[in-house]
Amino acid sequence: MPKYQDELDAVLRALADPTRRAVVERLAKSPAVVSDLAAPFSMALPSLMQHLRVLEDAGVVTSEKHGRVRTVSLRPGALDVLHLWLDEQRTPAERQADRLGIHLTRTNPKED
Amino acid sequence: MPKYQDELDAVLRALADPTRRAVVERLAKSPAVVSDLAAPFSMALPSLMQHLRVLEDAGVVTSEKHGRVRTVSLRPGALDVLHLWLDEQRTPAERQADRLGIHLTRTNPKED
Repeated sequence: MPKYQDELDAVLRALADPTRRAVVERLAKSPAVVSDLAAPFSMALPSLMQHLRVLEDAGVVTSEKHGRVRTVSLRPGALDVLHLWLDEQRTPAERQADRLGIHLTRTNPKED
Repeated sequence: MPKYQDELDAVLRALADPTRRAVVERLAKSPAVVSDLAAPFSMALPSLMQHLRVLEDAGVVTSEKHGRVRTVSLRPGALDVLHLWLDEQRTPAERQADRLGIHLTRTNPKED
């Protein structure tokens, strides 16, 4: 598979698990240390670390270790590949509706 | 899991496979009959039917049978649940950039 497809594949596989999605939802608010990330889940730390490894291998999160504390962050632009793919899958009818929406925003810029 | 999470889970699991994504990419252009969908893939028809079943169970595609011919379509709004989830995962910095972009579009509506 070309690079874009590989990246998309890794991101989708990483997100196709509810625990990993919950970690992403938490990290969208702010970075967190591993012990805080683990707290809401009733799973052993090694299992959570395994999920974090899948997210990091897919480029969804990054982590940094300072002393004994590892801090995990959502990688900026991590989900761009998925946004891009979703945009490409809009049907012709959806594209037409989008163009209408952009036109209305431009001709009525002050209306919310 | 609540209904929204169930739906998201099914859609992500369905899309976490390159063959199923290729089917979605094809159907985003127009509906297609099963034999045409199968043509680009070097897989037995029952395997492709299995992939179509996963996509249909996840609500990503719908199909209709007329006589012996089954036509498959992308379900309108099928990927909305994923758009919604992705929007929720924008980091505070990304949200700020979005607001700036909307402001610029509104104050300079004629510029592309």
